Amino acid sequence: MCGVVGVFGHTEAANITYLALHALQHRGQESAGIVTSDGDHLHPVRSMGLVGEAFSKREIDELSGQMAIGHVRYSTAGESAMKNAQPFSVEYAHGAIAVAHNGNLVNANDLRRKLEMDGSIFQTTSDSEVIIHLIARARELEVEHRIISALKQVEGAYSLLFLSENKLIAVRDPMGFRPLCLGRLKDSFVFASESCAFDLIEAEFIRELEPGEMVAVDAKGLRTYRPFRQEPTRFCVFEHVYFARPDSHIDGRSVYRVREALGRALAQEHPVEADVVVPVPDSGTPAAIGFARASGIPYDMGLLRSHYVGRTFIEPQQSIRHFGVKLKLNAVKEVLAGKRVVVVDDSIVRGTTSRKIVKMLRNAGAKEVHLRISAPPTTHPCFYGIDTPTRSELIASSHTPEEIARYITCDSLGYLSLEGMMKAVRAANGGVVEAERSHCDACFTGKYPIEFRPGTISSLRRVVN
Amino acid sequence: MCGVVGVFGHTEAANITYLALHALQHRGQESAGIVTSDGDHLHPVRSMGLVGEAFSKREIDELSGQMAIGHVRYSTAGESAMKNAQPFSVEYAHGAIAVAHNGNLVNANDLRRKLEMDGSIFQTTSDSEVIIHLIARARELEVEHRIISALKQVEGAYSLLFLSENKLIAVRDPMGFRPLCLGRLKDSFVFASESCAFDLIEAEFIRELEPGEMVAVDAKGLRTYRPFRQEPTRFCVFEHVYFARPDSHIDGRSVYRVREALGRALAQEHPVEADVVVPVPDSGTPAAIGFARASGIPYDMGLLRSHYVGRTFIEPQQSIRHFGVKLKLNAVKEVLAGKRVVVVDDSIVRGTTSRKIVKMLRNAGAKEVHLRISAPPTTHPCFYGIDTPTRSELIASSHTPEEIARYITCDSLGYLSLEGMMKAVRAANGGVVEAERSHCDACFTGKYPIEFRPGTISSLRRVVN
Amino acid sequence: MCGVVGVFGHTEAANITYLALHALQHRGQESAGIVTSDGDHLHPVRSMGLVGEAFSKREIDELSGQMAIGHVRYSTAGESAMKNAQPFSVEYAHGAIAVAHNGNLVNANDLRRKLEMDGSIFQTTSDSEVIIHLIARARELEVEHRIISALKQVEGAYSLLFLSENKLIAVRDPMGFRPLCLGRLKDSFVFASESCAFDLIEAEFIRELEPGEMVAVDAKGLRTYRPFRQEPTRFCVFEHVYFARPDSHIDGRSVYRVREALGRALAQEHPVEADVVVPVPDSGTPAAIGFARASGIPYDMGLLRSHYVGRTFIEPQQSIRHFGVKLKLNAVKEVLAGKRVVVVDDSIVRGTTSRKIVKMLRNAGAKEVHLRISAPPTTHPCFYGIDTPTRSELIASSHTPEEIARYITCDSLGYLSLEGMMKAVRAANGGVVEAERSHCDACFTGKYPIEFRPGTISSLRRVVN
Amino acid sequence: MCGVVGVFGHTEAANITYLALHALQHRGQESAGIVTSDGDHLHPVRSMGLVGEAFSKREIDELSGQMAIGHVRYSTAGESAMKNAQPFSVEYAHGAIAVAHNGNLVNANDLRRKLEMDGSIFQTTSDSEVIIHLIARARELEVEHRIISALKQVEGAYSLLFLSENKLIAVRDPMGFRPLCLGRLKDSFVFASESCAFDLIEAEFIRELEPGEMVAVDAKGLRTYRPFRQEPTRFCVFEHVYFARPDSHIDGRSVYRVREALGRALAQEHPVEADVVVPVPDSGTPAAIGFARASGIPYDMGLLRSHYVGRTFIEPQQSIRHFGVKLKLNAVKEVLAGKRVVVVDDSIVRGTTSRKIVKMLRNAGAKEVHLRISAPPTTHPCFYGIDTPTRSELIASSHTPEEIARYITCDSLGYLSLEGMMKAVRAANGGVVEAERSHCDACFTGKYPIEFRPGTISSLRRVVN
Repeated sequence: MCGVVGVFGHTEAANITYLALHALQHRGQESAGIVTSDGDHLHPVRSMGLVGEAFSKREIDELSGQMAIGHVRYSTAGESAMKNAQPFSVEYAHGAIAVAHNGNLVNANDLRRKLEMDGSIFQTTSDSEVIIHLIARARELEVEHRIISALKQVEGAYSLLFLSENKLIAVRDPMGFRPLCLGRLKDSFVFASESCAFDLIEAEFIRELEPGEMVAVDAKGLRTYRPFRQEPTRFCVFEHVYFARPDSHIDGRSVYRVREALGRALAQEHPVEADVVVPVPDSGTPAAIGFARASGIPYDMGLLRSHYVGRTFIEPQQSIRHFGVKLKLNAVKEVLAGKRVVVVDDSIVRGTTSRKIVKMLRNAGAKEVHLRISAPPTTHPCFYGIDTPTRSELIASSHTPEEIARYITCDSLGYLSLEGMMKAVRAANGGVVEAERSHCDACFTGKYPIEFRPGTISSLRRVVN
Repeated sequence: MCGVVGVFGHTEAANITYLALHALQHRGQESAGIVTSDGDHLHPVRSMGLVGEAFSKREIDELSGQMAIGHVRYSTAGESAMKNAQPFSVEYAHGAIAVAHNGNLVNANDLRRKLEMDGSIFQTTSDSEVIIHLIARARELEVEHRIISALKQVEGAYSLLFLSENKLIAVRDPMGFRPLCLGRLKDSFVFASESCAFDLIEAEFIRELEPGEMVAVDAKGLRTYRPFRQEPTRFCVFEHVYFARPDSHIDGRSVYRVREALGRALAQEHPVEADVVVPVPDSGTPAAIGFARASGIPYDMGLLRSHYVGRTFIEPQQSIRHFGVKLKLNAVKEVLAGKRVVVVDDSIVRGTTSRKIVKMLRNAGAKEVHLRISAPPTTHPCFYGIDTPTRSELIASSHTPEEIARYITCDSLGYLSLEGMMKAVRAANGGVVEAERSHCDACFTGKYPIEFRPGTISSLRRVVN
Repeated sequence: MCGVVGVFGHTEAANITYLALHALQHRGQESAGIVTSDGDHLHPVRSMGLVGEAFSKREIDELSGQMAIGHVRYSTAGESAMKNAQPFSVEYAHGAIAVAHNGNLVNANDLRRKLEMDGSIFQTTSDSEVIIHLIARARELEVEHRIISALKQVEGAYSLLFLSENKLIAVRDPMGFRPLCLGRLKDSFVFASESCAFDLIEAEFIRELEPGEMVAVDAKGLRTYRPFRQEPTRFCVFEHVYFARPDSHIDGRSVYRVREALGRALAQEHPVEADVVVPVPDSGTPAAIGFARASGIPYDMGLLRSHYVGRTFIEPQQSIRHFGVKLKLNAVKEVLAGKRVVVVDDSIVRGTTSRKIVKMLRNAGAKEVHLRISAPPTTHPCFYGIDTPTRSELIASSHTPEEIARYITCDSLGYLSLEGMMKAVRAANGGVVEAERSHCDACFTGKYPIEFRPGTISSLRRVVN
Repeated sequence: MCGVVGVFGHTEAANITYLALHALQHRGQESAGIVTSDGDHLHPVRSMGLVGEAFSKREIDELSGQMAIGHVRYSTAGESAMKNAQPFSVEYAHGAIAVAHNGNLVNANDLRRKLEMDGSIFQTTSDSEVIIHLIARARELEVEHRIISALKQVEGAYSLLFLSENKLIAVRDPMGFRPLCLGRLKDSFVFASESCAFDLIEAEFIRELEPGEMVAVDAKGLRTYRPFRQEPTRFCVFEHVYFARPDSHIDGRSVYRVREALGRALAQEHPVEADVVVPVPDSGTPAAIGFARASGIPYDMGLLRSHYVGRTFIEPQQSIRHFGVKLKLNAVKEVLAGKRVVVVDDSIVRGTTSRKIVKMLRNAGAKEVHLRISAPPTTHPCFYGIDTPTRSELIASSHTPEEIARYITCDSLGYLSLEGMMKAVRAANGGVVEAERSHCDACFTGKYPIEFRPGTISSLRRVVN
């Protein structure tokens, strides 16, 4: 998964982009990058690591210009990590162009093969570079039209920001899988994957880009385009369940309110007699609060999260039990001892972490442990930009909730139903009328909105933007 | 402030120390260090930064031996930072010795001056080195007795761990300002500032060292000493209010339960009509839960804390309002808009952060903001190991709560009373009888348990262990 | 200027390449790089700095495969330094290919412009990349024929080594500006710019590639091609005068013997009464020995060269006279005091260094200083791979030898004549018959063997391979 | 071996020291350090590596003050390398003091043991620190007198520079083993191990310090002291043979002229019929020139030295014959083929390098190889500051010249006699009358001028300053 930021017309464009990326840090911790334009040249900087570590003050200061795009990227394996860091920028016949991409193309491999046979040389294994080569070969004069020509050839999920010497162009794919917001900061326009980035830089949220919309900003102002055939909307429901920050407002609703509503619905679908409701912090917190309110069971912080979990931890040689989880979470005995505990989380992936948490709660004295998940079982991988494991690793793809409960060793396990989830999501939309199937729920249902040939999947998943 | 760890008799002593330091990371983020002994030589490694960044795998692997002590240290200013990182280790006539110190000596300058006039050469500006020179000059044969001889000359707060080639020695000062716990990990003994470190390494908590107790461990086993004149106990109450981790059990009680009790007492002392209780996360969370329960007002997460706040952030040139706080916290509009909000925090230092938080809550739509502090006003600096600002910087040293409320722009401000705080702390002790004045409350009252000459203060405070 | 190395069929290909690059270090100190092939994939490593600093043991060890090419590069200015480091390697439709280039193309800009208009995207500003794009667009099936097709479109100086997954291909341009040698190391073939590289790796010198020759080595053995129209040979005479190592055998003759012969001829053309002949070490040493022998004047080391001149020296703020030279050379008073001194160097570029040397000799007590240069005046820049300054910076382009002598403050100045130089060079060829004009002498005569349009010069010279 | 530099009264004291250290780089390549004083505080910087790599521009700029001392240090093994880098500086009761030491104390271990029993704590394993502790315990008021009091207790070889907040003090031991020169740079005084350092910084050479002399410089000017009992002079003859730079003037004579005279004497003692005299560059060059002149055999550069030999070279796994030497030297076939060659070097240590050089000359075609050494056989280790191997590693300690010649495979081997060497050294003194035994020749004779107990030797040799 990734996050993107764009700024047009601000004297501190690089710095504003840097701050906004910081607010989107949860969308990608592997690498970060910023490209600015001073009107004549692009100035790039890319680095592995967190935003706060990736750039030096001097590097930011040298990014001159009043236009910028930025990118944070989720952890992927392998040596190509640095090479695939974004924004990706090149010089070509018509000047310079940079791109920041959140999403995943499903026909990237076919397009790449065709371009290479015609003599194109690729620098990365990223599907985003395919778009750049299509732009370089496009015959149109204006960069907007070269971009449109290129994007008409690609299929998949994308929220894109392009930067040329003097234009910033934002595009969202026709189904609108990934979020992209437009805001205003004094006299400048800003773009960001989530609205929480605007809060930090004190920008005003204007609106989200619509699925299939392209917005171009230059010295003459902002223009909007609708170049693609209209498609049904398929916003990623997992952004609501887990991925987005709870203080963001995307897809027309508050993520926090969606999550609290999921917790309330969960309490109604899977009630239980218990003494305390505890979240798996921090992602399970809003749903746990919702569960506690709907059920009337007291909410308490039975699990504490450490703030100091680095990514390169030196493991002990001996097997400390449940080590990975212990580093991040610790149980508070006084909250749990002798209690019947409801523990609320957003999802179960492989089941190993949940199993460790249940053990940790029991070791702290919990009499009963009831696990409640604020979404349906995760049964299918995502091909539109979220780096989920393969199907065989997803425990729910091959096991029933009962089997999972036995493996996890909880006293009961309750998943929110697909209907319950979608009802809660829709209700959080303040009553706006939406189509029956307005979201992509493929990770829960296997119903993929865009077709793809099976052979392309493994390589596609090599690089998630 | 600092944290200390000791391990005796474990084949992975360095690794266990590393992990335990990780659990004490909240007690010091500036530097970290470990010294092991292989029975013949000490092996030290010290580095600036967090535990997870300070050491490489290779460095830890090279720390051979089954005995170790470790130290994390709070941020202090200046170039001497690396030099003053601990554990401090030397070779002297009788072999090698290392020390890890949590606390602060009040007569260190006098002792140092005297030692230097006799030809001693100091390597650091740390008061811990004074102890080492006193040990080097002691005439006793056994290291325990040299340590006793040295400590009889110093005054102040200390929880100390010493490591010689074949002994681990732990000491707590006669008044017991700082915590120090003893545990067992299989066949090895472990020491740590707080019990939460034992949870991570799966050690069993045995007991806390008593004030004035010295414990020595070597191949022959564990011996305990009582070398000092008995003094009244003065455990630091601020460890309960703010400093210790809530999942720790120190001073004979659960920190989490103390904090929840402080919140309950606060609700009784300063009730208010409101719609929601929100904590300043994470330190205000247990007190906010206590406040919510005692008052019956719903608890909610109106402020979200970012997990990605690094220490070297590049600030924007333009003034983003309340920038520092924004990087760490963001308000959730949906929780706050139109509401009368009680916000619970543990202390007000300069007042600037509280002021920013109140503004942030109001910008998110809060109709009323009522600030509740789960301790009395902080009016005096600490000379026993906590790096509080000077008196002139503490807003409560020169302003009344009413004046502070006006500055902070909250609708009401309520501090917990000294009596309320102490009653809640004592009650959390499970009914054990304690002396009337069992804790150091100097930061709230100015009643310092150990005298010192005013001239020594500023320099003393240069280095806090 | 640059140096290239190639190895085919050796189990330690990367290591052998590394050593051979070390022997060619004088041909380029800015950056170094190696690319190996394991039969399936290319493994590249490139770094700024000297060969001995550029690679770690681990990096070399990870360069698996029995084929390799390597490159050292001369210092050029600007941020693009790292980007332009070679070997340059890409993946394209037909697999992977890497190139190492010594020389300079004169029509690179025209070709690049044309390729970009057709949609090619360039990664560097190096003219070598033009060759790669021409190869990627070639329609031939075999890589040899794609390379031939590409090279038929370029003009200029090149000694090239290409590496595909399973072939090593060496090419020398039709005029043979730059050297390229073929050798054998046990069962493997090796290539290097100069034969001195073979001495270090204990390879046997077989022969030099002929101008216009292409040699391809793969599992089937070595094949030679003659794909280009025949041109008159124009080997760079400045390689003999200054650039190549004296222990190399290139252009069919010993560089050491050529230089000694230049010194002898110089003594005959510009005799002088003197007490001692001293070289400007180390490049002037063989010519000074030749001068001493032909003249009968004793040879001595009046100037000592420091072995510790780094490239990043911190200069004093005050003006130490002749500072730059002092760091590298120091005069030995005992050799010089009261003497009439002949000092022998290979060339005068701007004149500033020679002036400083003359002053240094006089300060050491020299009674007379007679400067002798073992080549004609350098009047024109090189466009075929040597990074000489622009014409306006070459003192001999606008001043007579008399004016130069006055500026340099020597008592007499003697340049070897063009005829004298060429006669000495030819004579060193052991009597082999050569064409009247067998060498490029453009830097002394301005007679450039390949035409170019004036507009292309400045940009061409941006990157010298 | 080490080199020292001092500057008093120059606005660019750090920079001048840095440059002078650069000129003394041959005396120590392991570490480099500078300490300045601004009148109130000392500012130190120390680093591993060559002078040109050890410091950043910023580090030098931050060394404020008009007084400085500097140190370069020879390579020694082990982890203590950085800790033992000099100048060594401390704060003690009377202020701050730094020391830079060239030489070796022979009673350091005894003194250290005694100091530690009295409670002193040492930071390094360097014998220089003993001097500092003696100073710290001295009762005298003035730093000069504390230094005298300390030095009266030590025995051995030392050329020392001390820096306090406002004084620079230089001392040479009573026997004068190591050189130390005094110079003037405009209004400031400068000190350096060798006069070649003055040439680079354009200082005027005044004189050498006399054995047993102490010179103190402060705001009041320069004072000289003679605090020690007079001893016979024992200047190290190996400085002339090998260690010092040939452009230096030390011990009252020109090192270059001494070496040339050694070569002349060698030609007389060991004449041979030959075609060419070649030096082992660079240290053998002056003696080879002397040999050629005295014998009438032509001098030529048959061995070329590479300028790019780094210290961390990655060796090939396969055995390239004589690899270590090949990296540094290469033979020039055209000079050697078919010739009877005299090769001149300054010493044979283990014999392995000489053996490789002889093989290299023969491989290049030499018909005969006659090795001539411009000093007697090296039979004993040095305990006064030169890091020679132990006796058992010195081939001449257990083998006759005939046996050595056989091992080295040369056709003949000739060492200069002790008498021949001393005569040449004395003659180079311009006729000044010297005592019969004016130099230390212990490495050739085993006659050590200062007694020591055998047990102390191995540890003494751990650290050579």
